[in-house]
Parts: sequence; C-alpha cells; structure tokens
Amino acid sequence: MKILVINAGSSSLKYQLIDMEDESVIAKGNCERIGVDGLITHKVNGYELKQEASFPTHAEAFEKLVEVLLNGEHAVIKSIKEISAVGHRIVQGAEIFTESVIITPEVIEKIEGIAELAPLHNPAHVLAMRACQKVFDKSVPQVCVFDTAFHATMPKKAYMFGVPYEYYEKYSIRKYGFHGTSHRFVSHELASLLNKDISELKIITCHLGNGCSIAAVDKGKVVDTSMGFTPLDGLIMGTRSGAVDPSVLTFIIEKENLSAKQLSDLLNKKSGYLGISGISSDHRDLCAAADNGNERAKIAIDMQIYQIQRYIGAYTAAMDGLDAIVFTGGIGENSPFLREAVCKGLKYFGVEIDKEKNVVRGKTENLTAKGAKTQVWAIATNEELLIARDTLQLVSKTK
Amino acid sequence: MKILVINAGSSSLKYQLIDMEDESVIAKGNCERIGVDGLITHKVNGYELKQEASFPTHAEAFEKLVEVLLNGEHAVIKSIKEISAVGHRIVQGAEIFTESVIITPEVIEKIEGIAELAPLHNPAHVLAMRACQKVFDKSVPQVCVFDTAFHATMPKKAYMFGVPYEYYEKYSIRKYGFHGTSHRFVSHELASLLNKDISELKIITCHLGNGCSIAAVDKGKVVDTSMGFTPLDGLIMGTRSGAVDPSVLTFIIEKENLSAKQLSDLLNKKSGYLGISGISSDHRDLCAAADNGNERAKIAIDMQIYQIQRYIGAYTAAMDGLDAIVFTGGIGENSPFLREAVCKGLKYFGVEIDKEKNVVRGKTENLTAKGAKTQVWAIATNEELLIARDTLQLVSKTK
Repeated sequence: MKILVINAGSSSLKYQLIDMEDESVIAKGNCERIGVDGLITHKVNGYELKQEASFPTHAEAFEKLVEVLLNGEHAVIKSIKEISAVGHRIVQGAEIFTESVIITPEVIEKIEGIAELAPLHNPAHVLAMRACQKVFDKSVPQVCVFDTAFHATMPKKAYMFGVPYEYYEKYSIRKYGFHGTSHRFVSHELASLLNKDISELKIITCHLGNGCSIAAVDKGKVVDTSMGFTPLDGLIMGTRSGAVDPSVLTFIIEKENLSAKQLSDLLNKKSGYLGISGISSDHRDLCAAADNGNERAKIAIDMQIYQIQRYIGAYTAAMDGLDAIVFTGGIGENSPFLREAVCKGLKYFGVEIDKEKNVVRGKTENLTAKGAKTQVWAIATNEELLIARDTLQLVSKTK
Repeated sequence: MKILVINAGSSSLKYQLIDMEDESVIAKGNCERIGVDGLITHKVNGYELKQEASFPTHAEAFEKLVEVLLNGEHAVIKSIKEISAVGHRIVQGAEIFTESVIITPEVIEKIEGIAELAPLHNPAHVLAMRACQKVFDKSVPQVCVFDTAFHATMPKKAYMFGVPYEYYEKYSIRKYGFHGTSHRFVSHELASLLNKDISELKIITCHLGNGCSIAAVDKGKVVDTSMGFTPLDGLIMGTRSGAVDPSVLTFIIEKENLSAKQLSDLLNKKSGYLGISGISSDHRDLCAAADNGNERAKIAIDMQIYQIQRYIGAYTAAMDGLDAIVFTGGIGENSPFLREAVCKGLKYFGVEIDKEKNVVRGKTENLTAKGAKTQVWAIATNEELLIARDTLQLVSKTK
C-alpha cells in the first residue's frame, strides 16, 4: 500500500510517497512558486529532477506531481490508482481536532473556519485538500494530521494565558502547541527503543530546528509545551523571538511607531538568532562566527542553550520527574555541540552524555553515559511517516 | 541612630522610622493623595493617627511626617536632628546602579535620566528625594537602594530578550528584575537561619504578593529572576498578566483595536487573578470563591501554583542544584494552602513540607519535613530594614 503525504504552504506543496509495506520513501519532492510561475524538485533514489512548470493553483501542482510519479524512466507507479490514500499535514486544529481524521467536506469547512488562528497555514492546507480532491478519484481517502493534536491533552493550568478570560471565550486565545507530530513520533520511538510502554515514562522532547519547541510527555500525554497560541512563543529560534516580556512589546510599538502587523513581522522574521547576532538565522553559521570571536553570535547560542536547560527544569517540575530527554529536528539531530552544552549544566537532573556517542549527526543514537540516571537520546524525527501511519490506520478502520 | 526609610509613589509617601540600635520600627505611616488634597496615616505602637492634610507636593508631605514624628503626646523624636539619615527605595536603577549609593545631585540626575524605564516610579522618587532635601538639613545624608540592584549579577544569557540586539543598545531593553531588596533580604536571612555562608547555598526565593517574582540566588548572586524589563513579566499576579505569547498581544491589538498604552493598561491592571477570575485580584477572595465552586477562580490559582512550580524547576536547572526554597510576600507568608500546593508537586526536587509547621502566617518558620533533602522556609520579608541597613552602612563608611 502506497500513501502520499502532503505538506502544503500558500505557494508550495511538499510531498512524499511512502510504501507502507516497509515504511520506505519511494519518492519525494516539492512544488514551489505556486501562483507565481512554478518549479518542481523531485527525488527518486539517487535521481533528482528540477524542472520549471506552470502552477497557477495548487491543482496544477498536484497534477504535475502525479505526472512525475507516473512517467519517464524514473516512474515509481504505473497508475494513480496505486496511491491508496493521501495524508495532509495541518498546522492548526484548535480545540476542534484533537486527533487525526478522515477528510469530509465538513472537516474542510471547519479547518477553514479556524483560519484566523493560523492565517499563513490553514487556508493553504484547504487549497491543497480541495486541489487534491480534484486530481484524485473521490474513492481515494484523504486524512488530516494536526500539528496541534498531540498537545490537546494539556491541562488548563498549562494552556491558559494570564489575560482576561473573555479572550479565550471570544477569540480562542490559549496555548495550542505545535510540532506535535514530531514530539509524538520521537516520544513513541523512544519508548519503543527502550522497550518500554510509553505509559511508564516521563519524557522531555526537544524539537530544535529553524523552529524550536519542547514538550513534556508524561505517560504518553503532553502536559506542557513551549510554543503557544502560534509557533512564536518559547525558545529563541532562527528568526523568531520566543518569549518576550509583554512590556517590551508595548515599549517597542511606541518607540518605533509600529503596527501590530509590523511588530509581528519583527518578532517572527527579524528576531531570534538573526536579530541577536545580526548575521544569520542558521545555527551552523552562528557556531562558526562564535568560534571566530563574534560576541553577539555567542550570546544568541548561549541564550538558546540556557533556555533549553530552563525548559528541561521547568518540565521536570511539570511532571515531577524525568526519565529521558530526546533531541530531534535539524539542530537537535545534528549539533553535538549544542547537545553537550545543554546536558553539561544538568547534572542535578541525572543527565550525563557519552561524548563519543554524541558525535552522531542525523541518526538515532543513545547518548546516555554509562551509569547516568536519565536517558538522553538523539532521535531522527519523521513527521511524514507518522502522517502516513495515521492515514493508514484511519483508512483501514473505515474499510 | 535613627534612620528614616522612604518609599515614594507619584501621589504617596510611605515611611518608617527605624531605630538601628535594635532594628525596631519606631513609627510608620503613609502620606497619600499628594497633589490632590492630602491624607496621613501614622502609627506609633498601638496608636494610629488618620488625618486630612494639604499636600500640594511631596515637600508638604515630608513636612507633615516630620511634624507628626515631633509633636503631640505620641511624639517619637524631640528634634529632627535625631534622624541621622534617610534611605529611599528606588524601583529602577538600570545598568547604572548595581548597588546602593549616597545621593548626590548627579545621582538624582541619573535616576531622572532613566525615568523612561520606570515612568510611574522614578519621577516620583526624584520628587521625593528633592522634597526631602528641602525639609532636612543638607548635612543629613540620603541613600538610594534599588529594587533592581540585587539582580545586576545576572548573566547576559539570562537578561537578554530574543528581539533585535539594537533595542538593547538603543533603548536599554533587557531583563532588570524587581523586588531585589526582598529577594536579597530573605536569601541572606535564610543563610543566617541555617547558620551557613550564603556562598554555599543555591536558593530559590519566591516573593508572592500583589506583585510576584521568583529569583535564583546561586552562592549569594542572582542568576535569574522572573520579572523582566518592567514588573509585568513572569508569573500571573493580582492584576498583571505575567508572561504571554507575543503573538497573543499582536492578535489582541488588531482584534480590539488597542493602542500600546491601552494594551499596557490591560496587561497591568485588568489581567492576572482579576482578568482570569473576573471577580477579584486578591488571593484570599479567589481561594474563597474556588472553595465555593467558582471554576475561573480555581483556574487562576491553579495557574499561579503551576507557574511557580515551573519556575522552581527552571531555576534549579539554572543553578544545576537546589538547597532551599523561600516563600515570602503577602501570599508567600500568609497562604499555607498555596505553599502546600506548590510543594506537593516537587517531590523530585527533594521538597516535602511539614504540614503542622506550614500553618504559620506572617512569620518566619522552617517548613521542611523531617528528612527532606531540600529546605523550605516561610520568611517574613523586611525591605525597609534592608534599606535602613544599607543606609547605615554607607553613612558609616563616609564618616
């Protein structure tokens, strides 16, 4: 059984075709510049296609990706009918969707209805789902997997903000959390690697990439996470500020005479690594600059490391215990330096890593030093696979 | 030696006259409604005077407080010359004042110069210092003790926000921390009670009142604290929001069409306990309402308890260790319920309190259960006494 996984943005359509027999990736790629002109990048084993195209809407992008899967010497399927189901990544499910669901017209309408909570993402997802329905036969089931769903178990004390309660009722303002598919994948992967039931474990999962979030997974359920109403809160990230004293924001608005939109852009696109260092939003660039004596690059990295440590402490308190820490995401999987720096300051929490094992990049590895009380792992995340698994499971149920 | 301690607001002047022989309070009171009409409340032992007055400026309030100290059957001094020095509480010392100082014209100018960072407080302090100079002989030394000074030891990784670095350079935007005099008093008091040198201890001090802040005091030096650029950040408080996802603020500004000033008022005056419960900013009122089944009152209290626990975890990570937790301030000293609720969730941190000792209100008490690894204390704070002690020390040095 082959499942197509879709991650749509307003002008892009990332895809992976996964063979569920062995959970291997058959092909993957990205349709970019939708609505502008069009560019497809498509990979099958060692082969890579990069081709200009015409994508007036997401529908043409879908047609093109089916075409490259079907045709030429690198074709991977003989008929579109070989694709049994399509799984879509959806950023915001709000309080409506607390688990993955089969797509119906009503589901699409509801996702459209909460567009205000994810204005950059949900409308794009809706476009992609509708386009997908045009290209595929109606008998091909489609499934939504939500970034927020794994966090739906948070208690109210963790997800409410200290602003007037009316804003929760009126505008659904609360903490939702994001990267849920990744936190769910790596926490379950860890339990499996430890050969334990997840209901026995208190795990802190650190998804660190361009976007960063940390989750406290207590017996398989998220009890807290660092991203909030949108993916801006929490840790400093590539270009995002993370948490900031609210009074700093009202001060900046007045001093710089900014609109809410301008402030939001500043905090989302010009802050974090980039804003502090003044040179780059990339972890590798900052590490290199810091090594060459760039003081501001060093501050940005130190801040992130320290904030991760604070979250690990805070979430140990949230769970009143800690069995394991997982590092994942671009930085989490590929920066031995950051992992070592974070762990070095957590002896109280029984954390000690094996420096030789910690050289690993992009792969799953147990980093725990011999005799250390708390497990530390690097785990390669795979959100697409989890989306495919959820899709398969839901489709199987309904058959 | 008698020292007068002053805590001035824009329309009020709180005072205490302290006898430094035994550190006892001789008299204390408050001149209110300065610039409106005038009201003085004055207490000496059991006697209380409440009198209408005329306070066009802080100078008249000073004259009045000297008058009540000098005259009538409850007079406590025979001559103004018995007051050897005056100590002023100053909210914001920024990066300029990292310890208490003797007041000079230059000091007053500098405090005025950073008024923008504490627009409600620093200008009022300046008015009070100038008025005080008019009323007292110039030979009476005056001293400033800053709320921010104890936090000046924070490392950059703790005090920088994730916004563009230019705002730090241009507007001095960073975390300053507040309640420093209280955190300093209770952390040193604890060391003394434990008969240890503070340089051996990792202490988390929780100042919980109408305003709330937590500090991590590592070997006598603050390494982090929950209040930030202003006293708005961190925990939810009586009417203050504490930390809020920045994207919530830009969302509210747009939806409610608020100015920066209106948003600031909302976050400072209509949020926290009051905003969440919708009924009161007072901890006792909320506890009573929660007991009577008020769901929103319960949420507000649960949020605060949970946030305190998270900070205790985070600051244990910041110090990579924890020897003691101190509760102080109006709620911290007087709410056995809150202390028990906080401690109940921190078994991992070696915290366990003695329920019988925890009944204490408004007094210093060791709450640590027998055999528990981490000390827990309620300590009655005394900011005025610390101001008086600093004043005495600086005055003695210069003589």
